[in-house]
Amino acid sequence: MTAPIVFLTDFGLRDAYVGIVKGVIHGRNPAAAVIDLTHEVPPQDIRRAAFVLATSVAYFPVGSVFLVVVDPGVGTERRGVALEAAGWRFVGPDNGVFAWALRFLAREGRVTVVPEGARLRLGTGARAVELTERRFWRPDISSTFHGRDIFGPVAAELSRGRALAELGEPLDALVDLPWPEPARGADGAVEGEIVTVDGYGNLISNLRREDLPVDPVFSIAGRSWRGLARTFQSAAELVALIGSTGFLEVAAPNGSAARLLQCGPGTILRVWHG
Amino acid sequence: MTAPIVFLTDFGLRDAYVGIVKGVIHGRNPAAAVIDLTHEVPPQDIRRAAFVLATSVAYFPVGSVFLVVVDPGVGTERRGVALEAAGWRFVGPDNGVFAWALRFLAREGRVTVVPEGARLRLGTGARAVELTERRFWRPDISSTFHGRDIFGPVAAELSRGRALAELGEPLDALVDLPWPEPARGADGAVEGEIVTVDGYGNLISNLRREDLPVDPVFSIAGRSWRGLARTFQSAAELVALIGSTGFLEVAAPNGSAARLLQCGPGTILRVWHG
Amino acid sequence: MTAPIVFLTDFGLRDAYVGIVKGVIHGRNPAAAVIDLTHEVPPQDIRRAAFVLATSVAYFPVGSVFLVVVDPGVGTERRGVALEAAGWRFVGPDNGVFAWALRFLAREGRVTVVPEGARLRLGTGARAVELTERRFWRPDISSTFHGRDIFGPVAAELSRGRALAELGEPLDALVDLPWPEPARGADGAVEGEIVTVDGYGNLISNLRREDLPVDPVFSIAGRSWRGLARTFQSAAELVALIGSTGFLEVAAPNGSAARLLQCGPGTILRVWHG
Repeated sequence: MTAPIVFLTDFGLRDAYVGIVKGVIHGRNPAAAVIDLTHEVPPQDIRRAAFVLATSVAYFPVGSVFLVVVDPGVGTERRGVALEAAGWRFVGPDNGVFAWALRFLAREGRVTVVPEGARLRLGTGARAVELTERRFWRPDISSTFHGRDIFGPVAAELSRGRALAELGEPLDALVDLPWPEPARGADGAVEGEIVTVDGYGNLISNLRREDLPVDPVFSIAGRSWRGLARTFQSAAELVALIGSTGFLEVAAPNGSAARLLQCGPGTILRVWHG
Repeated sequence: MTAPIVFLTDFGLRDAYVGIVKGVIHGRNPAAAVIDLTHEVPPQDIRRAAFVLATSVAYFPVGSVFLVVVDPGVGTERRGVALEAAGWRFVGPDNGVFAWALRFLAREGRVTVVPEGARLRLGTGARAVELTERRFWRPDISSTFHGRDIFGPVAAELSRGRALAELGEPLDALVDLPWPEPARGADGAVEGEIVTVDGYGNLISNLRREDLPVDPVFSIAGRSWRGLARTFQSAAELVALIGSTGFLEVAAPNGSAARLLQCGPGTILRVWHG
Repeated sequence: MTAPIVFLTDFGLRDAYVGIVKGVIHGRNPAAAVIDLTHEVPPQDIRRAAFVLATSVAYFPVGSVFLVVVDPGVGTERRGVALEAAGWRFVGPDNGVFAWALRFLAREGRVTVVPEGARLRLGTGARAVELTERRFWRPDISSTFHGRDIFGPVAAELSRGRALAELGEPLDALVDLPWPEPARGADGAVEGEIVTVDGYGNLISNLRREDLPVDPVFSIAGRSWRGLARTFQSAAELVALIGSTGFLEVAAPNGSAARLLQCGPGTILRVWHG
């Protein structure tokens, strides 16, 4: 049984792009199971992809190969990379899409990373290469579809057991994507922010359960209410609950909180002891 | 070759929920083939899921494990169940979603079930357990995502050959979902009703071929027309035909019959000999 | 390892049709990998399916079985066929959907085909049968779902190694779909046309790189501009570039070119030396 390839893109499913990459992979490793994470990341939304990846890794076996192709810079000078962190492997463009997975693994003490300006330096438990070994790629490289021509073939190689070091030149840092840490105001209120919006329009914040006071009061976009819900079932117009990703979400039980509140990533969410 | 897992939800494909459940399954049984039935059941539409399941079972090998997560009551006191009926296996919430599959199998004489108030008592050929054996679940159970934390892991166990009886306490009845049997009016007309609407807006009724008179005249939502069509190709605004599920469908060849007629589940469909 | 089945339809993913066909295949060949090419071909759009297929074949291993069900004529007298061309296999309705794959393989010298009126005669490297051997089908054949009842089962047989000749009677020609060859005007301009529109609204033409002059000027639907782009990243309202299919595409970097220009298949695209 070879390692599964977990496939995350913004390709959508209307065209044959996802299927073609799977064909290329199958030609190189017919035994590889390819599991779709989602292909409906909003076009070129690196933050959304980074969040989906970071909150999914733990549910896949160690050794899984995450093939991530959300790649607005395709055809420019941005690098292609492969990465190993705490035993999981990752392949895709070096545009920040791997930064939150690394930061979450670091938070759990599984790897060490150090932000340095716009880059994230890799420490214990993590190593990366720039993809330079063209013999593992398709012979003709397009300027618009590196998922098919480079990243898919490289993921297939990793799933077959190819060592990371064979794929290219070692890198000691990757492009970072800053994670907004919650702040605490002078009045003791916790100040978080919305990090991403899921497919239901739920507003997902940077706050974890341990950031919340007992008897919390929530305030966002001019609305405020008291109490943490346990499920999405509610008669209230808005609820706050710890979602399945482990982060506080603001949801509209009968619709989209993002649409109702007309807000999204970057919006401030305040919480205080009621 | 282990039994395939057939996966039916209302999760949609925009988020990573479907992929994450597959990751959890892969970690427990890497050899399990997971076949997506659909993940586009309208949110929390138990009737739609029950109909899709009931009309799909026969096309999968006996032994297949149907993992059904349409679960508006997640996090409340509703039970999780696993079920074996005529050799097929089923895992999910006990909210009626399995009732029509059981009733259809009973109609074909493959199992026996008896409605008792709001419950369906299991007889010959069918048995169920309440999922109580936490050792087969993920260690941390969220209140919003039992597909990942309980049902997916249990489906993986079944696909590996784990016996139903090991998963929990025996149950002798499940939550029922009443199936509307066609009636016959004093004038001899057959009175059916719309049971569900498919993704094209076709109105699917409870009438089978054997319920129809020769030379049928159809009437629904103020429209009526004569004759049963054989295919969807027609110049008519509305056609009635026996669809691929075996039930009479009302379709608008160039659009959505549900939208054209502004109707859905529960709407009466009358048929008489023309 | 048996040959993969590559699955292309207009079924969409809202209903269980795709999953049911996979169940039927799994029952006949549990070892077959089924790879979805796409199921979002616009309903009954044979040209779109023909183009997706023709531009995907090369990315799948020789021997792959392409199961194509875009079938407006289901239930009428149109034939079901299976086809072998340059080692790849194909199953589906004989409605022209395989014509462009054959023509592209012929252009590369891998097979020979000859247009004869509305049909495409098969020469070297290609052979076909009409599906007549009912013993390989499901026992009950609906008039609306041959993907489930005929084509899926036949694809499973081919993936298991069944010889094409066993499936039915030999055919020497299939229904053709004319491919618009680019023309050259008296002024030396190249006159191409839009062949299909992808899921992003990109207008895909019949022009290849070798059809273009150096320093090209493009004109379509009343707009004209100079220069071939290398990527989709551009501040321009419209760009022309060689897409990942190898054909010239007209794209609107921030939206849909089809909507912006209000045009689609058949629209003329002129290119001259600027």
